[in-house]
Amino acid sequence: MPYRAPLADFRFLLRHVVGLDQVAATDRFAESSAETVEAVLSEAGKLCEEVLAPLQRPGDLHPARLENGVVRTPPGFAEGYRAIAEGGWVGISADPAHGGMGLPLTVTTAVNEMMAGACLSLHLNPLLTQGQIEALEHHASDEIKALYLPRLISGEWNGTMNLTEPQAGSDVGAVRTRAEPLGDGTHAITGQKIFITWADSDFIANTCHLVLARLPDGPPGTRGISLFMVPKFIPDAEGNPGPRNGVSVVSLEDKLGLHGSPTAVMQFDAARGWLVGAPHRGMAAMFTMMNNARLGVGVQGVGVAEAATQAALAYALERRQGGAGTIVDHADVRRMLAVMKAETFSARAIALACAVALDMGRATGSAEWAARAALLTPIAKAFGTDVGIEVASMGVQVHGGTGFIEATGAAQFMRDVRVTAIYEGTNGIQAMDLVGRKMMDGGEAAFRLMQEIEDAAETARHTLPDLANDVWAASEALREATETLIAQDMQDRYAGAVPYLRAFARVLGAHFHLTAAIADPAREPLARVAIRRLLPEHAALLAQVREGADGLYALSPEDLAA
Amino acid sequence: MPYRAPLADFRFLLRHVVGLDQVAATDRFAESSAETVEAVLSEAGKLCEEVLAPLQRPGDLHPARLENGVVRTPPGFAEGYRAIAEGGWVGISADPAHGGMGLPLTVTTAVNEMMAGACLSLHLNPLLTQGQIEALEHHASDEIKALYLPRLISGEWNGTMNLTEPQAGSDVGAVRTRAEPLGDGTHAITGQKIFITWADSDFIANTCHLVLARLPDGPPGTRGISLFMVPKFIPDAEGNPGPRNGVSVVSLEDKLGLHGSPTAVMQFDAARGWLVGAPHRGMAAMFTMMNNARLGVGVQGVGVAEAATQAALAYALERRQGGAGTIVDHADVRRMLAVMKAETFSARAIALACAVALDMGRATGSAEWAARAALLTPIAKAFGTDVGIEVASMGVQVHGGTGFIEATGAAQFMRDVRVTAIYEGTNGIQAMDLVGRKMMDGGEAAFRLMQEIEDAAETARHTLPDLANDVWAASEALREATETLIAQDMQDRYAGAVPYLRAFARVLGAHFHLTAAIADPAREPLARVAIRRLLPEHAALLAQVREGADGLYALSPEDLAA
Repeated sequence: MPYRAPLADFRFLLRHVVGLDQVAATDRFAESSAETVEAVLSEAGKLCEEVLAPLQRPGDLHPARLENGVVRTPPGFAEGYRAIAEGGWVGISADPAHGGMGLPLTVTTAVNEMMAGACLSLHLNPLLTQGQIEALEHHASDEIKALYLPRLISGEWNGTMNLTEPQAGSDVGAVRTRAEPLGDGTHAITGQKIFITWADSDFIANTCHLVLARLPDGPPGTRGISLFMVPKFIPDAEGNPGPRNGVSVVSLEDKLGLHGSPTAVMQFDAARGWLVGAPHRGMAAMFTMMNNARLGVGVQGVGVAEAATQAALAYALERRQGGAGTIVDHADVRRMLAVMKAETFSARAIALACAVALDMGRATGSAEWAARAALLTPIAKAFGTDVGIEVASMGVQVHGGTGFIEATGAAQFMRDVRVTAIYEGTNGIQAMDLVGRKMMDGGEAAFRLMQEIEDAAETARHTLPDLANDVWAASEALREATETLIAQDMQDRYAGAVPYLRAFARVLGAHFHLTAAIADPAREPLARVAIRRLLPEHAALLAQVREGADGLYALSPEDLAA
Repeated sequence: MPYRAPLADFRFLLRHVVGLDQVAATDRFAESSAETVEAVLSEAGKLCEEVLAPLQRPGDLHPARLENGVVRTPPGFAEGYRAIAEGGWVGISADPAHGGMGLPLTVTTAVNEMMAGACLSLHLNPLLTQGQIEALEHHASDEIKALYLPRLISGEWNGTMNLTEPQAGSDVGAVRTRAEPLGDGTHAITGQKIFITWADSDFIANTCHLVLARLPDGPPGTRGISLFMVPKFIPDAEGNPGPRNGVSVVSLEDKLGLHGSPTAVMQFDAARGWLVGAPHRGMAAMFTMMNNARLGVGVQGVGVAEAATQAALAYALERRQGGAGTIVDHADVRRMLAVMKAETFSARAIALACAVALDMGRATGSAEWAARAALLTPIAKAFGTDVGIEVASMGVQVHGGTGFIEATGAAQFMRDVRVTAIYEGTNGIQAMDLVGRKMMDGGEAAFRLMQEIEDAAETARHTLPDLANDVWAASEALREATETLIAQDMQDRYAGAVPYLRAFARVLGAHFHLTAAIADPAREPLARVAIRRLLPEHAALLAQVREGADGLYALSPEDLAA
């Protein structure tokens, strides 16, 4: 698939919509001027267009496979990975003390979107390593940091996350993998883990597994789980990979999509592991890794939406049908393309705004920015991936019958992106996080954001009164629904959580579109699509929030089976 | 996949919601009492549960393939097809004079839904034959009828529809296939056709292609196209398949789903063809075939929705996570399952109501019933298939990570059903048909239907006032939007066509749910889900209708590519 890096959109969003200038004004990111960031993104874009995008179809046609215990990867993936590693794209935001670039997460987020849009199955590899780097930076001992971080950041080694077990999917507290102290400060890890992404490959010198396991004295539930570093090859003090550890790939899954990315069942047989963080506190470290990865997964959805939109537009501009023009002039095709474009922009803006909030929280220590980031993370993840799925499906529809043929590539986007709404916490879990944990402040962070949206709409009234009014009114409706939600018990909140999250994203997306149209009149038509055609959905979504849970539980499992 | 035929739902819908009694009260269908219909559906359900459902996964795992010009089909498909044919399930509604059962299309529609839910890729075969039977009944000469109909109705032979060419997808007027008169009343057909479903197999004695082609004196465009019967083997006067015709399968497509169903590129090299209907009037005959098939495709979506809901519920009832219960007790899982169930019911009711209208139109010659059927057909097709796609995707989500693994079967539903929104006229074309051709009566048929919905809501006010009021108000909103639509030019209509169709379906679905809840209080909880949680979407959809086309064309192709 040809893929064009959306550099102009990034430049515009960072400058005029999500406020990268605030980030560059901090001491920590003083070197991240707009010009520097643009140069970095331009370089990454080139990699994605020229090296990664050509791997998209081969990755699908030649699935990763297990041969005598060794994972064989699709043709070209080794070279593609090497280009990512050598460009420094794994450690964009990692600590310069260990070889990272130390750039804002905002930059990482944009680069991740492009890598995902170019070749999602390969992008998963550095994405997971990024999460591991962050978990180690925050929780590991200095010895582990010194040994592992430089090699993960350089891409010489890669990192995985070993959380799920056959009996425990989203229920991490049920983990059965055991960790026995060996007396020398290390532990013997024994158990089975499933759905392990990029658990092994034939082109990386070492693979570092972060594994959740229970110490002998670990209490039941999530508060008894510890985190261990379990490398495939045990490194010596200089970091040279030594003897093989008791870690093996049992099998690879046959999946709907992401065929290029090996998804393994992993067996740990008294594998040597090093504790990361405090005993029984593994969940905290794992959450650092997952929170980072959630934003990264959100932009996987955005990246696929971008790529699918480009492919559909290219087809629509070329396909003649019924008279002189091409199908891009058919009203319903134009509608689909406009919606795809508008949704991609909304999801991208939300993700970048989340990244800016994360950077500001880190750079300034501001609790308000941290709360903003915490609030936006589940929205960026769930809405970004939902948009990826919906836009990819619209892309198939624009292609007509051709879209159902695999060689076209439109169907692959749809297959690949589907799991992004599931992994790193299903979108249902993201929504529960939003209405539960992220509202434990009584909605303070949410209301503060709505106030900003409404203030911006007030200002925009002078220029684009009808659009500004729609955004203002929708934000008010969201505010009222949020007040209702906060007064509900948790069951009622959960029953409306997914619609609430989407309504929140609708308002945010409309706000960013409005901001864009104010900054650049050429962006008004797209803003109009987003605000006049897509935003009205918020009312129907918020109606579901008000319904609570009773109506759902009035339907018994027997009723559902009837 | 285990599959359970939804016989109780059919019984209830036919008796209490869509009014099969009216059909049975006509002379033509006097033998179709509720008891007879139930017995027939029960027999078909058994076939689907026991014979067809076990073919669903093998059909995916062993795709149809081309070997030395011969199409090889998945294991078990031959036996499955034989069971369909021997049960008489191809010709349920066909003329008894040629061996059909002469039962209402309502029965065919229910049976088709079950066959599609059990094994979509095999169901396509009899569905296309049904369409061909109907086209021949209406348009063929007595000789062709006598020769072909008994063998198509018995399933001894199958039928295909050859419409699409590489340069002409939905634009049938661009057909280039030529028909040269041979002087003996037959024609030599030459050209290539693509996307030909079940174009060949290794288990059917003859395959009969209905081919659109242009006679030498055919004017350009759709009014110059004629329809020809082109059998694979040319039958003698007694119907014994004789010499091989100049028809060959060039290749089979590698598709997103429906792997069990061969989709062929067909080459016609001076193949002998017999004119069906008048010269240059092939489109009329083809439309008969397509109209029939549209309702059949609509219930393909419903069937997959039913099967995906059953599979998701079974998983949710079994999967333990976080404490004592299973995930069916998680609010968001319960929400998804309730929505899946409610949507499936809505789409099924719309399809059956469409079938009843078709039967009433045929049995009574009533123009009003015929107009009702014409109005409902695009809605049944587009909404049924959209529901199939959305529910199948929700089914994957309910399964969590397991849903992304192919062996689970949830992903197959999603892959298989995706094309139903594309073939037999994309859902965009269905919507254009609804707002264009089907509103050429000034909206008379639509307004008459809304009046019935509002009258029913008035009556329901005594029993379920809140639900009745919601349905009444939504129908009023639809009425106002319809008035707006009729005043628009065609471009504006087309720009809002897809949202308008879905809003119409939302109102219809809510109406049928309300009718069900009035008839049986046990159905009130599901009706409440449909009316309180799903119906509100109509307002956002109708807002799009009011927007017209200008906003879409304000976005130039360059803007879209920016």
